[in-house]
Amino acid sequence: MTRKLLKKRGKKIGAAPGTLIHVGEKSEAAPRIHVFDYDQEHLDQREYPDAASCLALRDTDTISWINVEGLHQVKVIETLGQGFGLHPLVLEDILNTDQRPKVEIYDDYIFIVVKMLIYDTEHEGVRTEQVSFVLGNNFVISFQECHGDVFDGVRERLRSGRRIRFLGPDYLTYALIDAIVDSHFFILEKIGDEIEQLEDELLDDPSPESLNQIHRLRREMILLRKSVWPLRELISELGREETPMVSRETAVFLRDVYDHCIQVIDTVETFRDLLGGMLDLYMSNVSNRMNEIMKVLTLIATIFIPLTFIAGVYGMNFEYMPELAWKWAYPAVWGIMIGLGIGLVFFFKKKNWL
Amino acid sequence: MTRKLLKKRGKKIGAAPGTLIHVGEKSEAAPRIHVFDYDQEHLDQREYPDAASCLALRDTDTISWINVEGLHQVKVIETLGQGFGLHPLVLEDILNTDQRPKVEIYDDYIFIVVKMLIYDTEHEGVRTEQVSFVLGNNFVISFQECHGDVFDGVRERLRSGRRIRFLGPDYLTYALIDAIVDSHFFILEKIGDEIEQLEDELLDDPSPESLNQIHRLRREMILLRKSVWPLRELISELGREETPMVSRETAVFLRDVYDHCIQVIDTVETFRDLLGGMLDLYMSNVSNRMNEIMKVLTLIATIFIPLTFIAGVYGMNFEYMPELAWKWAYPAVWGIMIGLGIGLVFFFKKKNWL
Amino acid sequence: MTRKLLKKRGKKIGAAPGTLIHVGEKSEAAPRIHVFDYDQEHLDQREYPDAASCLALRDTDTISWINVEGLHQVKVIETLGQGFGLHPLVLEDILNTDQRPKVEIYDDYIFIVVKMLIYDTEHEGVRTEQVSFVLGNNFVISFQECHGDVFDGVRERLRSGRRIRFLGPDYLTYALIDAIVDSHFFILEKIGDEIEQLEDELLDDPSPESLNQIHRLRREMILLRKSVWPLRELISELGREETPMVSRETAVFLRDVYDHCIQVIDTVETFRDLLGGMLDLYMSNVSNRMNEIMKVLTLIATIFIPLTFIAGVYGMNFEYMPELAWKWAYPAVWGIMIGLGIGLVFFFKKKNWL
Amino acid sequence: MTRKLLKKRGKKIGAAPGTLIHVGEKSEAAPRIHVFDYDQEHLDQREYPDAASCLALRDTDTISWINVEGLHQVKVIETLGQGFGLHPLVLEDILNTDQRPKVEIYDDYIFIVVKMLIYDTEHEGVRTEQVSFVLGNNFVISFQECHGDVFDGVRERLRSGRRIRFLGPDYLTYALIDAIVDSHFFILEKIGDEIEQLEDELLDDPSPESLNQIHRLRREMILLRKSVWPLRELISELGREETPMVSRETAVFLRDVYDHCIQVIDTVETFRDLLGGMLDLYMSNVSNRMNEIMKVLTLIATIFIPLTFIAGVYGMNFEYMPELAWKWAYPAVWGIMIGLGIGLVFFFKKKNWL
Amino acid sequence: MTRKLLKKRGKKIGAAPGTLIHVGEKSEAAPRIHVFDYDQEHLDQREYPDAASCLALRDTDTISWINVEGLHQVKVIETLGQGFGLHPLVLEDILNTDQRPKVEIYDDYIFIVVKMLIYDTEHEGVRTEQVSFVLGNNFVISFQECHGDVFDGVRERLRSGRRIRFLGPDYLTYALIDAIVDSHFFILEKIGDEIEQLEDELLDDPSPESLNQIHRLRREMILLRKSVWPLRELISELGREETPMVSRETAVFLRDVYDHCIQVIDTVETFRDLLGGMLDLYMSNVSNRMNEIMKVLTLIATIFIPLTFIAGVYGMNFEYMPELAWKWAYPAVWGIMIGLGIGLVFFFKKKNWL
Repeated sequence: MTRKLLKKRGKKIGAAPGTLIHVGEKSEAAPRIHVFDYDQEHLDQREYPDAASCLALRDTDTISWINVEGLHQVKVIETLGQGFGLHPLVLEDILNTDQRPKVEIYDDYIFIVVKMLIYDTEHEGVRTEQVSFVLGNNFVISFQECHGDVFDGVRERLRSGRRIRFLGPDYLTYALIDAIVDSHFFILEKIGDEIEQLEDELLDDPSPESLNQIHRLRREMILLRKSVWPLRELISELGREETPMVSRETAVFLRDVYDHCIQVIDTVETFRDLLGGMLDLYMSNVSNRMNEIMKVLTLIATIFIPLTFIAGVYGMNFEYMPELAWKWAYPAVWGIMIGLGIGLVFFFKKKNWL
Repeated sequence: MTRKLLKKRGKKIGAAPGTLIHVGEKSEAAPRIHVFDYDQEHLDQREYPDAASCLALRDTDTISWINVEGLHQVKVIETLGQGFGLHPLVLEDILNTDQRPKVEIYDDYIFIVVKMLIYDTEHEGVRTEQVSFVLGNNFVISFQECHGDVFDGVRERLRSGRRIRFLGPDYLTYALIDAIVDSHFFILEKIGDEIEQLEDELLDDPSPESLNQIHRLRREMILLRKSVWPLRELISELGREETPMVSRETAVFLRDVYDHCIQVIDTVETFRDLLGGMLDLYMSNVSNRMNEIMKVLTLIATIFIPLTFIAGVYGMNFEYMPELAWKWAYPAVWGIMIGLGIGLVFFFKKKNWL
Repeated sequence: MTRKLLKKRGKKIGAAPGTLIHVGEKSEAAPRIHVFDYDQEHLDQREYPDAASCLALRDTDTISWINVEGLHQVKVIETLGQGFGLHPLVLEDILNTDQRPKVEIYDDYIFIVVKMLIYDTEHEGVRTEQVSFVLGNNFVISFQECHGDVFDGVRERLRSGRRIRFLGPDYLTYALIDAIVDSHFFILEKIGDEIEQLEDELLDDPSPESLNQIHRLRREMILLRKSVWPLRELISELGREETPMVSRETAVFLRDVYDHCIQVIDTVETFRDLLGGMLDLYMSNVSNRMNEIMKVLTLIATIFIPLTFIAGVYGMNFEYMPELAWKWAYPAVWGIMIGLGIGLVFFFKKKNWL
Repeated sequence: MTRKLLKKRGKKIGAAPGTLIHVGEKSEAAPRIHVFDYDQEHLDQREYPDAASCLALRDTDTISWINVEGLHQVKVIETLGQGFGLHPLVLEDILNTDQRPKVEIYDDYIFIVVKMLIYDTEHEGVRTEQVSFVLGNNFVISFQECHGDVFDGVRERLRSGRRIRFLGPDYLTYALIDAIVDSHFFILEKIGDEIEQLEDELLDDPSPESLNQIHRLRREMILLRKSVWPLRELISELGREETPMVSRETAVFLRDVYDHCIQVIDTVETFRDLLGGMLDLYMSNVSNRMNEIMKVLTLIATIFIPLTFIAGVYGMNFEYMPELAWKWAYPAVWGIMIGLGIGLVFFFKKKNWL
Repeated sequence: MTRKLLKKRGKKIGAAPGTLIHVGEKSEAAPRIHVFDYDQEHLDQREYPDAASCLALRDTDTISWINVEGLHQVKVIETLGQGFGLHPLVLEDILNTDQRPKVEIYDDYIFIVVKMLIYDTEHEGVRTEQVSFVLGNNFVISFQECHGDVFDGVRERLRSGRRIRFLGPDYLTYALIDAIVDSHFFILEKIGDEIEQLEDELLDDPSPESLNQIHRLRREMILLRKSVWPLRELISELGREETPMVSRETAVFLRDVYDHCIQVIDTVETFRDLLGGMLDLYMSNVSNRMNEIMKVLTLIATIFIPLTFIAGVYGMNFEYMPELAWKWAYPAVWGIMIGLGIGLVFFFKKKNWL
């Protein structure tokens, strides 16, 4: 089992809220802070060496997308948090990477936590990563657990100076969430392919391996479901919320991504139902096949056991067994045995047992 | 498995919303654009060679039904979209033929996505096709994936100049949606027949083939359910929405088609329950039958094994076995063996095992 | 399987709404039109030869209950429909006897569709029949599929001049719906008896026949459930609706029949749960019993197979087998074999396998 | 099966509402009418010979609790009903003891139907009885099906002149309902004990008897659930209803009994889940145990069948079988057979089959 | 089974509400009353010998947290209750330690009941304990069943003089509830580890022990679910309630703990689904493995039974069996037998049975 069910929380029971403790694997590498700073005409794209140097971006007129990769250095998060005036609970939630997807509206900013699915081509598996967004008046800060994301399409659009450059940070946030929802489709397509292949296997030649695969996919669906239902609520709340941080224009796009999100949920539920049906099919097919084998084997035994009995009878050593001396006794016994065998086969055929 | 679970989306993760990419099979043939242009007195029915020539229909007084068959030429959709002032997200949704059924109300038009079920008489299977409607003040544009639909009845009514010609484009849209809901009944009737036939088979003579059929029908129900629940929401929303595009008179008819839609859902759910019960019945019947066979076979073996043992005993070659020399030993042993056999049969009968 | 899952709809896909097509079995007999025309003092009860002659009842001061038995002559329905000013969709719904129970409020009348359950004493089965009511200011029209109903009690009350004669057509409609809900209790009581009897059978002596009976009852519950849930909505809507056609006094009675309806639903759901539990019980009991048999049979075989092996050993024909010449070898071998047999039985007993 | 699923309704289909027919067992004994008539200072407790003599209590200043035990004499109910001005439907519901728990608010009184659970120490089973309350301005009438109830605690409190004497009839009604909810806990505790004991049995030594017990308890839960969900609605409605008959002070106590009621529901649902899990456990354990036995038995047979074959070979009577004449052939064959036996045992052990 | 399903209620059916009866194990030790009395500058932490001496804390300006450990001396609770003006129903609920988690808003105080989960390192099991809070204007009283809790983190924060000292008793209550919710995560992490380990076992080597473990964990989930759903309602109600006792600032923190609570619920439900899937996997794997063994064993028997029959035939003692005298008969029979054996193996291989 590659995916852990729960991440260990470092927080002690009863510790103060807002205690900043990183949850997840430790790493020595410094977190990467990459910034897109843009307005309609200019785009400045660079990497910052530390968190403190980003803070100036708060008071510029341009829109800034500050992307932090790596949460293991609590200091970095703390500096950004204080610089941008974030609530201690927000910082705690950013670091606690086992959060439930949610949105929280504060006076100056909106805090969003979502789960990103990344298809790991190397291990042929799905990797989940928590991404937190802080959407302010002229900035978006995104926090990722480690390097590698699904935002390359968004970056390209920013660079190519399209519509995304003419709209505010709320549209950028929408674009990032949209990319995350799209990544779900990508994963679901792969899983859909696996399910279809598995279905063919089940009808042709069900193996114990298929069973484990069904189990693995069901498990995947259960975990996916856990992260995608709150995503729906989140987007719905974001679009409904009357806040100056989300413009009416972006709300139309949020409605669109909401529809996609419902479609993801429908698909996950449908896959669950299908996998449940496939388990039934597997069990029934295996049991049918097994029954077939056992039936044939038992029939063979059932035919030969009476014959062996007859042979046993004439293997007895009694002195007075008149049949033994008869000339045609031996072929006659053969005849009886063959007749009995054929008779039993016919009987079983008639009973529809063969 | 003939029906694919998910269609491949061409869209790259993170691509801009409104990116027009056709999803589905490519085709060389040009899309067919067929137009009914009518008012109470006149009906003009013709095919247009390209999308651009339709645009004039937007500003006429007559009602136009523009039916586009084939979505593989993105250019056609784009031309119509710009000509009739459609939102880029609408165009994206038209092309993305794996949409969830939905309705979206815009200022000038209503956008509707539904799934049409077509019974393919050639392959004896059900084909699903996405149909999108754009309902404007004096036009309805419908987009189908390929040739062949369930609208022939509506076309006939248009030609024969009945009530449908006296009412607006909202009534035409209702008529088209009604035809789609009716097509669900048509499919459900066929499936209902299959279920009844299968039930008889299960009671008479359950075969592994029945199992696969139950599985196939359950799968069909799961997929049908996925498309029919949102259809209900859609019609409900359409009838409730206070928009100048849907008249009060049409709302009465929408209430009627809403009732039909609920009946479709009820039937799908009922079929699911029935198929679940049939799977139980199949499993129990197969297991009962198998048990019966194994029981009889094991009984036969159990009767003959002790007899064979007795025969074996008197096949031993000890020098001092007094019974061997007795005159009536051989018939006596026969007697014992027959007696034991009959005794066992009676014992099993008494125990109700035979 | 006696009850069809779906009735064939005659309507072509895409046909105009309000197209009158009778669904169900054809019959040559003319529909019977029976009328109770009454006020507090008088009661006129007669049969009308055709629909046209009833139309005069619309404008009298008395209350008229026009009961139509048989829907196969579309003409009759059409005449009544036009005479009493019914919407074409209402007429279509009356004829389409596979409707979902529902209520529709029009300006001048209320249209109600319900399912009546009739216990067919001849075939010992349940028959479902659609009954439609049109409740107007001074009339109730009821449409039944064929002869035979559950309204005899209501007819008697009308004749005996009790309270029902002092109240309006809304009370009459209530009385008819009440009779239909009562008929559900009647059926459920019969099914409850069957379930109790089946439970006793399952504990005493489960037979494959019991399995089919459980399946049949579950199927009945699934179908009953499909018709009884919408009945609840219907009555609730009827009692809630603020319409001059339903008086406040009748609303109290509707609340009562609503309670009964919920009780029917509770009972149906309870029966479903019970039947689910009984299926589990059946399966477990059958499997327990089978295991018991197989265990005993296998034990017998297991005891005799080693004994037969020993007999086989001394049936070998080697020249140098010293035991064969010993005087006490034969009884000794018997002793060993009996000892081994008894030992195995004890071993199995100790292991709790016998 | 001791508890009937449904009581036979005496009412004919279509009979007038308010027709008074007693449902349940007939009895010759006269119903007992017992009255507590009290205010803060006085308490008068006596039995009344007939219903008519109670009617005077309606117009006194004191609070009267009129408890009727036995519903088989319709006349008694009718007299009380007319005397206290009850609606005919209320009287019908009192007599029809298969009602769903419910509350109905009338102008002058509140009508409440609940189910009382009584643990029958004699038969070690649960008995259900319908209790109806009519709560008026200065009286409470309670109707029980037969003698024996759970109200002794309330009676004691009345006699000892505590708070209950200082508060109105609404508080008395609360106290009676509270006693009924408490009686559910009493029953649930007994069932909880049974479940725990059963769980231990299942882990130690599952017997077919355990299966029937699980089934019985599940059945009990299904029936309990049917009566306890409406009880919750009832209490909630009673506490919410703005009526002069229920004071604000009593509403606080109703909130408390509501909490208890939810706890009963939680427990019933939890028990259902636990029993479902126990059935799975039972089935798996039985199947595991059976498999274990069959495996060992089959292994024994599998070891001896090849050995018997070898013995059979040297029991053949061919003239030219050189081995038969060899001196060490016999011990060699023994050696081969023992070696083969041990080899098979090792092979099975290595395969983890033993 | 260590955890009892229900605690015995001491209360008699029908006893007056507010009757104080301790539910749970009796103990001789006096209850410990430990008090933190603090404001921003001072902290007084001491143990009080009896309840009466605490009452003075009610009228001080400082905030007091009175923690009572042990409920077996009803007198203590009564004294505190009267001293702090608590409703009798509140006192009853404090003592009845089988309460459902709930919140009740009174005029002067808020009463909260929750369940605390404590991991018992000694017995490696989970222990549940009811904790009740009374939140007043300047005090919090907490009642625990026995010694040992999850509040040490909170105590440390109080002592170290951090934010918690600057905020009111509502924040203290939040901190205590937060610690209880955190303790759920702690338990869930342990259970998550167990589930993952169990999953590995199921795939590698399913043992009957695994089955019991799955059952135990499912049981734990069912019971956890019962206590955690009402916890969610409770926190939601507490944050929503407009009462002077809960400040707006604390409400933000309650929203945070609400999110955590939902995450606990999600995890519990996910674990339930996973355990359900694991049971299926276990059953299928065991059945597959068993089938595999039985198949091989039956194949061995099926191969040797016909061979034994042949040997039996030539062990017959007929005088006229020409084969017996042939020189090559014996090796020929060996050849036939070996050939038949190999043939059967090939046949089974071809049929995919081996």
